[in-house]
Amino acid sequence: MAKSKPKKSALKENDGIKQPESLSSVSAKAIKSKRQKQPSAEELVKGIIQGNITALSRAITLIESTNPSHTKKANTIINACLPYANNSIRIGITGVPGVGKSTFIEALGVYLIKNSKKVAVLAVDPSSTLSKGSILGDKTRMEDLVKTKNAFIRPSPSGDSLGGVARKTRETIILCEAAGFDTILIETVGVGQSEIAVHSMVDFFLLLKLAGAGDELQGIKRGIIEMADAIVINKADGENIKAANAAKLEFNRALHLYPEKASGWTPKTTLCSALKNEGISEVWDMITDYVLKAKSNNYFNRHRKQQNTFWLLQTIEERLKSNFYNRSIIKTELKKQIALIEEGKTTPFNAAEYLLGL
Amino acid sequence: MAKSKPKKSALKENDGIKQPESLSSVSAKAIKSKRQKQPSAEELVKGIIQGNITALSRAITLIESTNPSHTKKANTIINACLPYANNSIRIGITGVPGVGKSTFIEALGVYLIKNSKKVAVLAVDPSSTLSKGSILGDKTRMEDLVKTKNAFIRPSPSGDSLGGVARKTRETIILCEAAGFDTILIETVGVGQSEIAVHSMVDFFLLLKLAGAGDELQGIKRGIIEMADAIVINKADGENIKAANAAKLEFNRALHLYPEKASGWTPKTTLCSALKNEGISEVWDMITDYVLKAKSNNYFNRHRKQQNTFWLLQTIEERLKSNFYNRSIIKTELKKQIALIEEGKTTPFNAAEYLLGL
Repeated sequence: MAKSKPKKSALKENDGIKQPESLSSVSAKAIKSKRQKQPSAEELVKGIIQGNITALSRAITLIESTNPSHTKKANTIINACLPYANNSIRIGITGVPGVGKSTFIEALGVYLIKNSKKVAVLAVDPSSTLSKGSILGDKTRMEDLVKTKNAFIRPSPSGDSLGGVARKTRETIILCEAAGFDTILIETVGVGQSEIAVHSMVDFFLLLKLAGAGDELQGIKRGIIEMADAIVINKADGENIKAANAAKLEFNRALHLYPEKASGWTPKTTLCSALKNEGISEVWDMITDYVLKAKSNNYFNRHRKQQNTFWLLQTIEERLKSNFYNRSIIKTELKKQIALIEEGKTTPFNAAEYLLGL
Repeated sequence: MAKSKPKKSALKENDGIKQPESLSSVSAKAIKSKRQKQPSAEELVKGIIQGNITALSRAITLIESTNPSHTKKANTIINACLPYANNSIRIGITGVPGVGKSTFIEALGVYLIKNSKKVAVLAVDPSSTLSKGSILGDKTRMEDLVKTKNAFIRPSPSGDSLGGVARKTRETIILCEAAGFDTILIETVGVGQSEIAVHSMVDFFLLLKLAGAGDELQGIKRGIIEMADAIVINKADGENIKAANAAKLEFNRALHLYPEKASGWTPKTTLCSALKNEGISEVWDMITDYVLKAKSNNYFNRHRKQQNTFWLLQTIEERLKSNFYNRSIIKTELKKQIALIEEGKTTPFNAAEYLLGL
């Protein structure tokens, strides 16, 4: 339509008046100089160990920063905190959107704090790179938890890769533990590889489910069920109770089909209603049982050591790959070699030799 | 008991008489000089393309050799054969020991040859490094198949790693195809990672099972069921028929639980008795149906291209890792860093940076 075209007309709209600067250069300078007075690594470490939440938050911001000098400072802080870390129970919580993860975490968190625990809630959600923190971003949903000083809530770090996000979260766990948080809840969404990353940084992995209609097992990623130490069926209240009990039976049967876990623990299915605060203490009792069992047979420590080795090798291998594939000559030649393979002019193995020799 | 102790006695057994050399140095030399007259790469390629089994066998021996000059010659042969390869149906066959894999492969092979096919039978069994070819090693079990000139049977190559064994088998497929074999059967044992390797080099993946008593699903690795395009219940004869039908129902239910395959193919369960030659033609009809479907929706070619890219990247990444971990400084320092992590003196990430910087 002609309407959308700019009309040449005498009725020309004048440019608006230029806004005055809202800050004088003097006060801007003052603010900047204040900003530059960042606490030193030593000050932050001291603060963290004293349980100072501001120091903890600031240090985590350094972990999350992409600025190399921040990374260096973060590493200093993490290393200084290491001797104070490791004394916690780390719990991974997953479930598809809509299952009530935030409500559940709030209910569990409030219960734990009433029982004299200090609770840190973190998240691993690589999709938050786009949405700038989709899970836990809306802290208002966790109102009760946010109010207490024994709770610390931090949304998912952003990052260009799951590996990056997972690394930041794993380092954040260390700082939270050094700050005295003895229960670390790590939330993730039930869609994709992030479960595997979270599973490999926690002691106990909990899958939240709903009692749906019909084919309960259809929609679940089998790998996630296999990782779960517990399936908690949420929203088991009112008219849902019958369906929830049926789902519990079905999940128990499904869990039964998997081989025994290295922990010696038999995964359990329980019901709860996070909204009505029902079944929450049962979930915690179950986790306590697990920890007792895993500590008594020494699986708990062995498992954490295995996780550390896993992360070491994982980090090395990711870096080896990215160092290789990010070379510009490899980017160009890889495409050419794939084309040659498709044309039947070379084999994958010869192409690999060629690329590795560049 | 005293009996098992060597007795000090005057009745000492003398050493046996030294055997005379069974070959004179002259005839040994003659044999060696004859051995050294190896055909050239060009001669072998020509022989392979003409369907000469001796040339094919010799070229495969070069692929399997660890001698670098043999590897070079093998690569020349493989590249020359590539334009003649790719025209076959590649079928992976797995199942735990005792399920009757050899009998099944023989029955299927004989059936195919009667139907004017040329059948190559290969194997991927990394455990054969120790047992020197456990599967297919005993060719006498495949008597009928060995007799016909349209069948070619080759035991699993040995190798220090599954990756090595899989690579050799994959290259052997190319030579067999160039030699005119239009149906490639690749056997593997139902225990471990070798299924994944075989799955990624075949068009159709077949799981052989028995109708056992009781919990049918218990003993099966879920991942293998998920990969299967068909479950064939063997030994479905005589008194077993009832149990086999029950197992068929149960497997069909299990297969139904998995998400739809990218091929658009719904995995099927069938019964057979390889020993009594029953149900074999039905298995082949099913594979033919699959190939028709997969070719008509272009999955067949797309899938082979994906497999090629997978092997390219896989080879690169394995080599990057082995190049890194085999450096002697890394071997030493990796252990030290793991110890430091366990003592809480460094993080997996800092340790990784340190090792990557060496």
